[in-house]
Amino acid sequence: MRRKPNVEQRRRDLCDAAIHLLAAEGARGVTHLRVDRQAGFPDGTTSFYYQTRAALLRGAIARVIELDIADFTAAMDATGHGEVDSLLATLAEQAMRTGVEPERSRARARFELMMIASRDPELGDVFTGLMGQFESISEAAVAQVQPVGKPRDDELIKEQAFAVVTFLGGFLFRLAYGLAELDSAKSLERYLHSVIAGVEADHVEAKKK
Amino acid sequence: MRRKPNVEQRRRDLCDAAIHLLAAEGARGVTHLRVDRQAGFPDGTTSFYYQTRAALLRGAIARVIELDIADFTAAMDATGHGEVDSLLATLAEQAMRTGVEPERSRARARFELMMIASRDPELGDVFTGLMGQFESISEAAVAQVQPVGKPRDDELIKEQAFAVVTFLGGFLFRLAYGLAELDSAKSLERYLHSVIAGVEADHVEAKKK
Repeated sequence: MRRKPNVEQRRRDLCDAAIHLLAAEGARGVTHLRVDRQAGFPDGTTSFYYQTRAALLRGAIARVIELDIADFTAAMDATGHGEVDSLLATLAEQAMRTGVEPERSRARARFELMMIASRDPELGDVFTGLMGQFESISEAAVAQVQPVGKPRDDELIKEQAFAVVTFLGGFLFRLAYGLAELDSAKSLERYLHSVIAGVEADHVEAKKK
Repeated sequence: MRRKPNVEQRRRDLCDAAIHLLAAEGARGVTHLRVDRQAGFPDGTTSFYYQTRAALLRGAIARVIELDIADFTAAMDATGHGEVDSLLATLAEQAMRTGVEPERSRARARFELMMIASRDPELGDVFTGLMGQFESISEAAVAQVQPVGKPRDDELIKEQAFAVVTFLGGFLFRLAYGLAELDSAKSLERYLHSVIAGVEADHVEAKKK
């Protein structure tokens, strides 16, 4: 007797196949039939689990976000509290993995999906939510690395988190599409530190005025 | 007697139509016939000027780069030499225009084309060249704003230009796809200053070691 397929696992496999196709060929490469074949399932499987293109893309978006949040949470958990170097090092190492698979495909799919979602009302503002989550996590991360003994400055932390998310987004795009050369996570770590410290210096300066 | 159409102008119009379609619908929205109709030319016009899809996309890439370089050059020319605030202000104002048309469509088309080019050997590494040009222009810009009286430090200038191009790329992506809120060019100008100053501080620090 055949075991009933695990529905959740099947959906994950289909979304991973869609992510692979988005990364390799862009939105043009994604059809229900091509996802079936990429995943190695019988023709019609994807249509059974995801009736519309919007539903399939929503599934891929949810999968990317699930993996992103898992990575970010793991990075946060792995890092000792209050250690500037180790937190930035962890983030930088994670970002550098975007240069290799499977993270590279996920990053490329994420950019494709962000672009698709921005022009498709059926997909809505799901990425606005993700950016918000990235910034919340970055705020928590930046908050950990504030100088000891100073009162917490929420406005500064928000600015630093915005700058980190924006710089990292630009870097990940370049890395995922072969438009950046950076020799090591150590170099990226220093840029992240520079961005955080530069925002703090200008914040302090602006307060004086 | 009908005037012979201006070939260069006709090609520009077709490329502008392709840019519009890329921005509005992504790579899936671009076919020769749809470019004809978007540009308001008879069916077959695009196929006459650009025989293949790769040729059409190469035309669109060249057009985006031509407009980018013109904007960047205008910003450089408009800016007094050695005035930190005015150069950064000009760059920031230019970047903020990515939130409105026609710059928004051009930015979205640029991102689409960067992604297409990265997986299409026929389009080659044209954007590697553009990133190089952006960085050269940024290097020139950053060089203008070095502290007076200090010897020129080419390595520092390269690092600052890399950081500016990366941060701006991340910001433009967010702005073009509705993923960033920033109230004014003044705010962006301050972030650019923070990035440049932060890289300098860490560069000086690293030299001491």
